[in-house]
Amino acid sequence: MKESQLVIVGGGPAGLTAGIYAGRARLATVLIEREILGGQITYTPLLENYPGFPEGVSGNQIGQLMEKQARAQGIAIVLDEVTGLEVRPEGKLVKTTGETYRARAVILAGGCRRLLINAPGEKEFTGRGVFYCATCDGPLYRNKAVVVVGGGDAAITEALHMTRFASSVTIIHRRSQLRASKVLQERAFAEPKMKFAWDSVVKEIKGDKMVTGVVLHNVVTGQTSQIEADGVLVAIGHVPNTEYLKGIVNLDEAGYIITDQMMATNVAGVFAAGDIRHDSIRQVVSAAGDGGTAAVAAERYISEAK
Amino acid sequence: MKESQLVIVGGGPAGLTAGIYAGRARLATVLIEREILGGQITYTPLLENYPGFPEGVSGNQIGQLMEKQARAQGIAIVLDEVTGLEVRPEGKLVKTTGETYRARAVILAGGCRRLLINAPGEKEFTGRGVFYCATCDGPLYRNKAVVVVGGGDAAITEALHMTRFASSVTIIHRRSQLRASKVLQERAFAEPKMKFAWDSVVKEIKGDKMVTGVVLHNVVTGQTSQIEADGVLVAIGHVPNTEYLKGIVNLDEAGYIITDQMMATNVAGVFAAGDIRHDSIRQVVSAAGDGGTAAVAAERYISEAK
Repeated sequence: MKESQLVIVGGGPAGLTAGIYAGRARLATVLIEREILGGQITYTPLLENYPGFPEGVSGNQIGQLMEKQARAQGIAIVLDEVTGLEVRPEGKLVKTTGETYRARAVILAGGCRRLLINAPGEKEFTGRGVFYCATCDGPLYRNKAVVVVGGGDAAITEALHMTRFASSVTIIHRRSQLRASKVLQERAFAEPKMKFAWDSVVKEIKGDKMVTGVVLHNVVTGQTSQIEADGVLVAIGHVPNTEYLKGIVNLDEAGYIITDQMMATNVAGVFAAGDIRHDSIRQVVSAAGDGGTAAVAAERYISEAK
Repeated sequence: MKESQLVIVGGGPAGLTAGIYAGRARLATVLIEREILGGQITYTPLLENYPGFPEGVSGNQIGQLMEKQARAQGIAIVLDEVTGLEVRPEGKLVKTTGETYRARAVILAGGCRRLLINAPGEKEFTGRGVFYCATCDGPLYRNKAVVVVGGGDAAITEALHMTRFASSVTIIHRRSQLRASKVLQERAFAEPKMKFAWDSVVKEIKGDKMVTGVVLHNVVTGQTSQIEADGVLVAIGHVPNTEYLKGIVNLDEAGYIITDQMMATNVAGVFAAGDIRHDSIRQVVSAAGDGGTAAVAAERYISEAK
């Protein structure tokens, strides 16, 4: 059992900002991240709407800057996976695969994870043509044909990034129009390398050693067609990392955590921040703002609970 | 009458971030700022808790970066003072001293303004020893004795900055302990130039051509005393810039705007963001987060209202 005043679950912009604020408030703080500090933005090639960076900044870079800033405030950062939360009179117990952390307060900032398309071939060809991150794997597809599954901001951002490398980028979207913001749509439509397969879902990913193509199902006509492709970038959305929180804090129907405006959940001393929250716009700046607010609220809770 | 889709009132971090998001969403947007783009942070010498700047950034610099980023998105920025808001079926009318702007949606991001101590001599000696901004006027007080009125984060931050210039910095605070965060308190107590006058309020500011001292009233003992000083830096707090909004949108008792988590006020199409909001922690990162959320909410409102 390790003791601290505050445990922050998640090391994306929300968690790291909470860490910056908690560290400056001189709270003994442990931040636990499962995968990579910086969180999901790490996979974003160019972030143009985080205020303060008019030339844009890569997700990887802003993540590293925030990590450096949080570490400079003296908080402890641990790489481990949180598997449970127990609320007891003597404190909140945050359980990981190898340890239990006890703290007065907890900030849940574990974000979301990518949705899979769950088509035959997806798992089989992951790393052999199926990928989830243009920044990481984009350069592998130089002069190759790539399909991108999805129609939201993230999908179009990733697809536009892929045009730097790929010979063609085909958006496969289940509707007849994109959900992405207008500015991204305009860019996508203006990009000569970009093609669109509307009203379509991926029925199967084909290949031998590597991906060779995708079988599409048109949801309007019912017809099946095939596109040759060397790469399949899946960008269809997210689910909140809240499975272990069911029955412990109030969640909405989609599993996002319900908070008040000070980021408090229904459990005293348990706060949530960032993409994991109900009503989050899932942007770096809003996640960071949430994290700051949650840390201030947690500091007040801890001071008052003394 | 000037027409647009969105009017943003205020050009601090909340308003500028809303501008970045609105511009990227291709909304025809006018941002109206009364005084200085960047808002109150412009007066902050070193901002250490805005995520992404581990070495810190001056308030002036971050304001300029955000302004550049917002302008790059093609929004119009106007310097004028907003004096009224009228909600009509044909749109929201934002009135300034010289113009009326009509838009589908409005984001109120006008922030707060400094409180005055309202002691005899304050107005008379403003600019002649009484000042409100260490960054702007600090260098004028090299090797001089300065008093700082206040005990919160802003006051202590400004006071610490003044120690770079002044021979002594005396904090005058009406309570027996500071309200500032612990990290700031630790720094203040460790700084040899810093002195403290507890339980005290400024009864009068004295001087001839320039400030020569302050008369203090001890609120516990009832006694009066005098401190010699060449400068008086007033840093006692803020009031929200919402006078013209009374009876138009719901305000809390202190005049801050009440919103939901998507920054919507009780009036459809009218949103609020930043320090002007009830429950804001009045930090740059939370104001910016609010601004992003308000712009996304305003975009949805405008799209749906078509």
